Amino acid sequence: MKKEIRKIVLTGDRPTGLLHLGHYVGSLKNRVELQDEYECYFIIADYQVLTDQLQKTQEIKNNIKEIVLDYLSVGIDPKKSTIFVQSQIPEIAELYLIFSMLVTFARVKRNPTVKEEIKSSGIKKPSLGFISYPVSQAADILCVRANYVPVGKDQLPHIELTREIAKTFNQLFKEVFPIPEPILGKTPILPGLDGQKMSKSRGNAIYLKDDKKTVEKKVMKTITDPQKIHLGDKGHPEICNIYKYYQAFFPEKTEEVKKMCQSGKLSCVECKKQLAKILNEFLDPFREKRKEFEKKPKLVEEILEKGRKNTQKRVKETSEMVKEAMRMRYENL
Amino acid sequence: MKKEIRKIVLTGDRPTGLLHLGHYVGSLKNRVELQDEYECYFIIADYQVLTDQLQKTQEIKNNIKEIVLDYLSVGIDPKKSTIFVQSQIPEIAELYLIFSMLVTFARVKRNPTVKEEIKSSGIKKPSLGFISYPVSQAADILCVRANYVPVGKDQLPHIELTREIAKTFNQLFKEVFPIPEPILGKTPILPGLDGQKMSKSRGNAIYLKDDKKTVEKKVMKTITDPQKIHLGDKGHPEICNIYKYYQAFFPEKTEEVKKMCQSGKLSCVECKKQLAKILNEFLDPFREKRKEFEKKPKLVEEILEKGRKNTQKRVKETSEMVKEAMRMRYENL
Repeated sequence: MKKEIRKIVLTGDRPTGLLHLGHYVGSLKNRVELQDEYECYFIIADYQVLTDQLQKTQEIKNNIKEIVLDYLSVGIDPKKSTIFVQSQIPEIAELYLIFSMLVTFARVKRNPTVKEEIKSSGIKKPSLGFISYPVSQAADILCVRANYVPVGKDQLPHIELTREIAKTFNQLFKEVFPIPEPILGKTPILPGLDGQKMSKSRGNAIYLKDDKKTVEKKVMKTITDPQKIHLGDKGHPEICNIYKYYQAFFPEKTEEVKKMCQSGKLSCVECKKQLAKILNEFLDPFREKRKEFEKKPKLVEEILEKGRKNTQKRVKETSEMVKEAMRMRYENL
Repeated sequence: MKKEIRKIVLTGDRPTGLLHLGHYVGSLKNRVELQDEYECYFIIADYQVLTDQLQKTQEIKNNIKEIVLDYLSVGIDPKKSTIFVQSQIPEIAELYLIFSMLVTFARVKRNPTVKEEIKSSGIKKPSLGFISYPVSQAADILCVRANYVPVGKDQLPHIELTREIAKTFNQLFKEVFPIPEPILGKTPILPGLDGQKMSKSRGNAIYLKDDKKTVEKKVMKTITDPQKIHLGDKGHPEICNIYKYYQAFFPEKTEEVKKMCQSGKLSCVECKKQLAKILNEFLDPFREKRKEFEKKPKLVEEILEKGRKNTQKRVKETSEMVKEAMRMRYENL
């Protein structure tokens, strides 16, 4: 029987902390589905942490472990997918160096997302690596010759750059790279508990790993409609953060919650309690799986070693194709 | 007996063509002396060719071969020194990626030599890799933890950047790198046959590999003092290109040549003939050695393979020290 050739997907995370519900809704859930249809590579982009958190490298190791456990607990299956750590594939850095020759300096400076990130990071003098991380990301994507890259909207400029680099290489040397396409998430972005973007640094996230009580506490603290203070006050679900969670996680409940809120029959406290309860029911299977995985002491190490080998094999191929195309293999000198 | 710990020197060339007398006077001669006192690494920086000659990668392979033969013919001894090709040491690209996080974008843009090179290259939109090649050069130097770097004056800004990167890394993480010092060549730069800087692209160079007739032809075509046309005309050695060659190669002859030229007794034609003769006598031993080396079909390949292994061993060490210092080794996850 012929092995079916499946299209390749690459996506991943920076190991800067635990994964949260925003990651789940925006990306992880989708990955669990993708892994049945595609050959999936999930990169843990540790070098990319250095762009803005150079002082925190000692935390990366533990973050990698937590991320792998998060992956496993939501159903990413290392038998189906490849999970690997960026810094363990040296060819990625080689591609980064080569790609940096294929893209003009002016082009790199023009990336709106990077500009925005520099602004919001508060870093006054960004590093060369910060400015050029989209080129490094192109190397992450193209090293496995990915066809699809699931991303958020803010990542689209990076995919565009990756596509340009792939085209330039193919044109200049030889057809080595597919031109990868973005897969845009359909789910709207889940806000943090304060209505802002959910993120570790803002402390407004519900983590996949959070226990029951923590979730309850976080949900109860969430800001709702400021005009609805007492039971009986009519609420405005469209501006309520809690309501957005219903929309994201329990769409079947939204109509009822909306009516009850608008009519004033449902108090915010009661509404939050209900949400906490069903969020906890939702997270319970993840927690249980996580507990099982945490018991196996060598598991994460083994998964990453297998991932490294798988990725290495594919990337070596790419690297040889690249050097062959550039006539930089130097055999029989 | 304890192995003596020798200081480490790194320098090298881009494989963009044959080496010429300018290289010899400015660098190769010095290297032959350095290899007795230091542990020398000579890098053939093939990735760096991509900064401005992306369209000529098919020439790199042959240029590498020619450069190694040039090295051997002038007396660089692969038993004493390590000759290696940049692209065959993937850890260099990894260091480049890491170092790009340690240096601000603003700092990279400020390099006067790069600015000058971009201007003279005629490239309107330089690549990211062109702008940041001094960071890549820092990786070349620091990957072997070099103590000394023989350079020309124009390279001093790059060494300064390398020193800054080494200091930043050591401060931020752990003392891994020595702070390398430049060794500035004492010999004044040898001009090309047209009085301009000697370079392949200007076609004004005498190559180490040039045969007798070619050297004669090139010398005879050289522009001398434009006011000295006939025998008897008094010459001005201080503005004569031929005289500069006497100064560089045959200092013992300069007094005599100067007097004869100034007095008008020595015609330019005669003076050139003499120079061609002694240049050829000077180049003869190189040519003979080269012929011997060219006869051995696998020689260059073997030397580079040995160089790769030597360098790899040292660079692996560096790479482990770097990752250890950054706490990015991830053992026992």
